[in-house]
Amino acid sequence: MTSLRDITLDDIESLAVGAWVLGTGGGGSPYLGLLNMRALYAEGKRVRLMDPADLDDDDWVAAVSNMGAPLVGQERLTDSRTISHAVRLLEDHCRIRFRGIMALEIGGGNGIQPLMAAAHLDRPVIDADMMGRAYPEAQMTSVAVGDLTPYPLSTVDCRGLEAVVQKVPTWKWMERVSRKICTEYGSIASTCKAPRTGAEVKQWGIAGTTTKAIRIGEAVRAAQQAHEDPIAAILAVEPGKVLYRGKVVDVERRATEGFLRGRSRFDGMEDWRGSSLELDFQNEWLIARQDGVPLAMSPDLICVLDTGSGEAIGTETIRYGQRVTVIALHPPDVFLTPKGLAHVGPRAFGYDIDFKSVFA
Amino acid sequence: MTSLRDITLDDIESLAVGAWVLGTGGGGSPYLGLLNMRALYAEGKRVRLMDPADLDDDDWVAAVSNMGAPLVGQERLTDSRTISHAVRLLEDHCRIRFRGIMALEIGGGNGIQPLMAAAHLDRPVIDADMMGRAYPEAQMTSVAVGDLTPYPLSTVDCRGLEAVVQKVPTWKWMERVSRKICTEYGSIASTCKAPRTGAEVKQWGIAGTTTKAIRIGEAVRAAQQAHEDPIAAILAVEPGKVLYRGKVVDVERRATEGFLRGRSRFDGMEDWRGSSLELDFQNEWLIARQDGVPLAMSPDLICVLDTGSGEAIGTETIRYGQRVTVIALHPPDVFLTPKGLAHVGPRAFGYDIDFKSVFA
Repeated sequence: MTSLRDITLDDIESLAVGAWVLGTGGGGSPYLGLLNMRALYAEGKRVRLMDPADLDDDDWVAAVSNMGAPLVGQERLTDSRTISHAVRLLEDHCRIRFRGIMALEIGGGNGIQPLMAAAHLDRPVIDADMMGRAYPEAQMTSVAVGDLTPYPLSTVDCRGLEAVVQKVPTWKWMERVSRKICTEYGSIASTCKAPRTGAEVKQWGIAGTTTKAIRIGEAVRAAQQAHEDPIAAILAVEPGKVLYRGKVVDVERRATEGFLRGRSRFDGMEDWRGSSLELDFQNEWLIARQDGVPLAMSPDLICVLDTGSGEAIGTETIRYGQRVTVIALHPPDVFLTPKGLAHVGPRAFGYDIDFKSVFA
Repeated sequence: MTSLRDITLDDIESLAVGAWVLGTGGGGSPYLGLLNMRALYAEGKRVRLMDPADLDDDDWVAAVSNMGAPLVGQERLTDSRTISHAVRLLEDHCRIRFRGIMALEIGGGNGIQPLMAAAHLDRPVIDADMMGRAYPEAQMTSVAVGDLTPYPLSTVDCRGLEAVVQKVPTWKWMERVSRKICTEYGSIASTCKAPRTGAEVKQWGIAGTTTKAIRIGEAVRAAQQAHEDPIAAILAVEPGKVLYRGKVVDVERRATEGFLRGRSRFDGMEDWRGSSLELDFQNEWLIARQDGVPLAMSPDLICVLDTGSGEAIGTETIRYGQRVTVIALHPPDVFLTPKGLAHVGPRAFGYDIDFKSVFA
């Protein structure tokens, strides 16, 4: 028997905070998604959460995300209906009906996209994603590591552009073709990824990540209200460690080829005084170097948080002078296998180094 | 009652020659298409030609072409089945069955693509196209001038890449999105354009262009065999005029953003001794300047022919030292209206001049 849990507006307020932490700088700011959900709840719409374990093996599940450069997403595709159009387009194309809607990536605004689609289409949100964080490319998912079918994928935007990538030989080809489409749309597109069966979600989905994001957000918000340390509060509900504390002294950022790429530099404060940190990003924070030496890298989650509020800072919003604390959280196990590391380890991003966990 | 005419292999030999003349430098060399048709006919396949007037109003017609940079088309997508995959993909997507298959553009290899699809799918070729020549962009067609629906469009390649552009707000957006897909495929894709009804083909199609290409090719081939002037032979069956005769002294050519762009320069011979000609191209010859003064321009057909053989020379095959005769042929009437000129006149290609016909 399937039990569905009501998601309250307070849950969504927490989800927006927690998903931004898990976004590791990317996935897009959740703020516009939060405003959309407040408006949809004010209209009387409600969204329910479904445990992926309750899916039937032959159910179809939609995996949604906005794809592109987060900086552009701050201004475009802000209408909550756009993501539901991507779901409907894929349903029409495949002649199937999705039982529920899940996030491609729980990180950032993409952790809220399934709720918007669910509100418009009256389906449950599945409590799972395929990254446990955010990643920039299509082949950087648990389902790609699992060699599941990469197609078809739908892309839409608010101008009435709609395209379906019907077939590709590899996940990397899905990334290439869909990225070009999204770039031509204006570097952002709402997408519905290859339909997954219930059996596939149960085997390869990363379960419980919506709940996890809500839990992290609740901890931050409670600490804020109690004037306690919000970063300690995160680490009390989610295993991880503080890597660095400092202030932003430089940001190089460019929106290019459908991505936001660049580097941010920090000067140390407190225990890290006199020590510098560099963070490279491609939508998400990829690698941290302390005084030139690799300190943390993907797939470990590198989260840059406002030291005062505990709220995450995105690669598109980081700016000179911000006081930040950099923490690391554990990655999903699926990315720690040799196959997983081939998809999301440092070499997958062009760095000629082997993965070394900060938790080793 | 529908009468279908058998297309003989000799017709196809002539079509390859005539379509290349009508290609105005583009549409891709017909040579590989001709080889494919010889092989298909040797296997026993046969293709028949249908007058568009015999279409029922509610028939569906496929319009096919290879899209991209002609230079790349010399090496890729040479399998005759690829274009039929594009047709099948669109049939599956739209859940329709095409009565027949027509050329998007009669010019160049794209004048033979419908025959390859027709041979594999056992449908007639409709004796019509949408350009009466070749043009580089999606909005440069009679059906775009007629404001018919620009979508959906299918794209395939030989790696198993398949994508459908399902909806666009304008023809120019269809060009933009499909061009990026074709560029990512490797600057060439086999495509099936928006399905047309029989009524639309009868109103907006350019009728009889397959027959016209065969007629031109027959004239060239007969003149070659009789050791007569093949260029005079073309102008005996098709109204037009000789613009220039000379030899190629320079070619600048680059494959960029899914197009082949550049310029060729000629030194005059015979009556044109001492006079230079420059031809700009974007896949097709667009504008001819004699001693710096515009001489001919789109939509007039500018055809560069080998002076000796009368065979056309493409923008991807033109090279230093060739002896050429440049002729102009009449464009379809649909491109001579103000709306038509807005789509394919010199300003549509970025030239700040008004169209002036060489036949005025």
